[in-house]
Amino acid sequence: MNISELGEFELIDLLRVMVDNSMDINPSSQPELILGIGDDAAAWQGDPSMQLATSDTLVQDIHFILEFISWEELGWKAMAVNLSDIAAMGGLPRYALVSLSLPTSTEIDSVTDLYRGMIELSGRFDTIIAGGNISTAPQVIINITVLGNTEKEKHILTRSGARIGDKIAVTGHLGASAAGLKILKEKIRLNSESEKILKQAFLRPNPRIQEGQILVEKGVRSAIDISDGLIADLGHICKASKVGARINTSRIPVHPEVTSNFGEDTLALALSGGEDYELLFTAPIEIINNVKHTVSCPVTIIGDITDDFPGEVVVMDDKGYRLSLKSSGWKHF
Amino acid sequence: MNISELGEFELIDLLRVMVDNSMDINPSSQPELILGIGDDAAAWQGDPSMQLATSDTLVQDIHFILEFISWEELGWKAMAVNLSDIAAMGGLPRYALVSLSLPTSTEIDSVTDLYRGMIELSGRFDTIIAGGNISTAPQVIINITVLGNTEKEKHILTRSGARIGDKIAVTGHLGASAAGLKILKEKIRLNSESEKILKQAFLRPNPRIQEGQILVEKGVRSAIDISDGLIADLGHICKASKVGARINTSRIPVHPEVTSNFGEDTLALALSGGEDYELLFTAPIEIINNVKHTVSCPVTIIGDITDDFPGEVVVMDDKGYRLSLKSSGWKHF
Repeated sequence: MNISELGEFELIDLLRVMVDNSMDINPSSQPELILGIGDDAAAWQGDPSMQLATSDTLVQDIHFILEFISWEELGWKAMAVNLSDIAAMGGLPRYALVSLSLPTSTEIDSVTDLYRGMIELSGRFDTIIAGGNISTAPQVIINITVLGNTEKEKHILTRSGARIGDKIAVTGHLGASAAGLKILKEKIRLNSESEKILKQAFLRPNPRIQEGQILVEKGVRSAIDISDGLIADLGHICKASKVGARINTSRIPVHPEVTSNFGEDTLALALSGGEDYELLFTAPIEIINNVKHTVSCPVTIIGDITDDFPGEVVVMDDKGYRLSLKSSGWKHF
Repeated sequence: MNISELGEFELIDLLRVMVDNSMDINPSSQPELILGIGDDAAAWQGDPSMQLATSDTLVQDIHFILEFISWEELGWKAMAVNLSDIAAMGGLPRYALVSLSLPTSTEIDSVTDLYRGMIELSGRFDTIIAGGNISTAPQVIINITVLGNTEKEKHILTRSGARIGDKIAVTGHLGASAAGLKILKEKIRLNSESEKILKQAFLRPNPRIQEGQILVEKGVRSAIDISDGLIADLGHICKASKVGARINTSRIPVHPEVTSNFGEDTLALALSGGEDYELLFTAPIEIINNVKHTVSCPVTIIGDITDDFPGEVVVMDDKGYRLSLKSSGWKHF
């Protein structure tokens, strides 16, 4: 059955039941929710902590291709990219609004799969889908807004908090998501385990919510999530903080499946591939060491915040030569 | 100059300056804003009032046609439909997130005009554009999320608050917006003053924020804004409140420009046209009379909440005959 057969309001009722059922599993997670899906606006009891809000739109054939991603994975990913923005601020996600625009020929099962993916991921962080709306469009358009907050009295992580002398660090491994996309687009065949790992990195990224919390706790001030790519996102920090950055390619924690399968593309995938949704942050070295000892994922120092070339990222190889991005990848100047 | 020539990040910088300048005019309006456009998320100081959040997506050629609406009017309207949802809850809008998806060929002047329209309307209600994002798409897609709150200790207006015996009332006049759309689509010519009034009703609706506040103050419990049309939206109240409604067509406050120009289409425009963004609410008669004496716009009682046909709206003419919606308009059963 598709949307035009079921009807818009009936579809909303169906999705509301799905969301309600998911809340029943853990009803105490959101005691402040007053009014969820089904009124003109969602409502919840406020609190005096710092409030965070982020919004992102995914458009079919621009941000995703239904040939490559299942509806459930799409739901997961659309939620993940927004949760990741809250993670990058050191916040806790609380509520999500989902605005869907869909062709009327969309199968109801596809929409419920999409919601299943969103609910699965948001549920892991006690985040409730509290509202949104549904309308028609010639292609699939998903907008998610996530509202979050900080723990009491805690500061937020910003792009503008980097200071000269800070070390630059990154959580996890890089390049796997871009490698996964490349496999899907170019129909590259690897051994099935490698393929699975890389595709999953692209299709079901994990927002670093707990890690963001630990960064705040340990005194980190500046962070961003890697969505545009390591160099581009580090550039955003440099620009906002009015500092320069120097990183060394030999220190980049490239995902081992990328290193072993992508030869000379490896560096480009790790530096500019994007969509890793790892946290890139800067802090004095003692703070970073402190973070390292607390988080359960790898944390790697990849370079320094400097006072040369404010707003720019300088990329060096292990011999001390500077590299630049050409259409063929990262090459010597 | 278009977006591909200027660049996405430069466009964001330009829009940030526009928003900052608009805040400079009245910097005290948002003392709690900590971080606006330009980081991973917007941030502001929370408070213990009830929080409200609503989100809506407008898609080119589905929800608007650029032939009929200027970019500035589009910005106004996209903001208005969301502010109206906050009004319908009896809340005060505070922050907006704007997610734009645009063809790269879009002129920068069009985008700044769009923002000018959004800023103009949101500024009237001390609402700040605190974040969002921009991406590419084959057509124009505008998602706005508005966050609001209630005044201290105040309740919210809900769809589920209608009680048997309540009177049903509506602010302002109905049908003008749908008539404006009809004029634009069918290229109908009226005298220029009439045309202007009706087109403006469609292109630049006014969210009833102050009126929503007064409804709360006077003790109204149930309201909705008229976006789908009077009958459809009253149906939403009936369904959510598990009550019936009976209205009388002779009492409907049809906009005088509609009555005088649209002959037999008048009733259909007023009952099912939609997009009036007036507030439809229910309450005991004393409360409605109290509201009437306080608000500066007309308030008209159009019917009663009943216990017949729960979830349904019964439409009667002045002779007591029941009407139903046919493809040719509202006719006797």
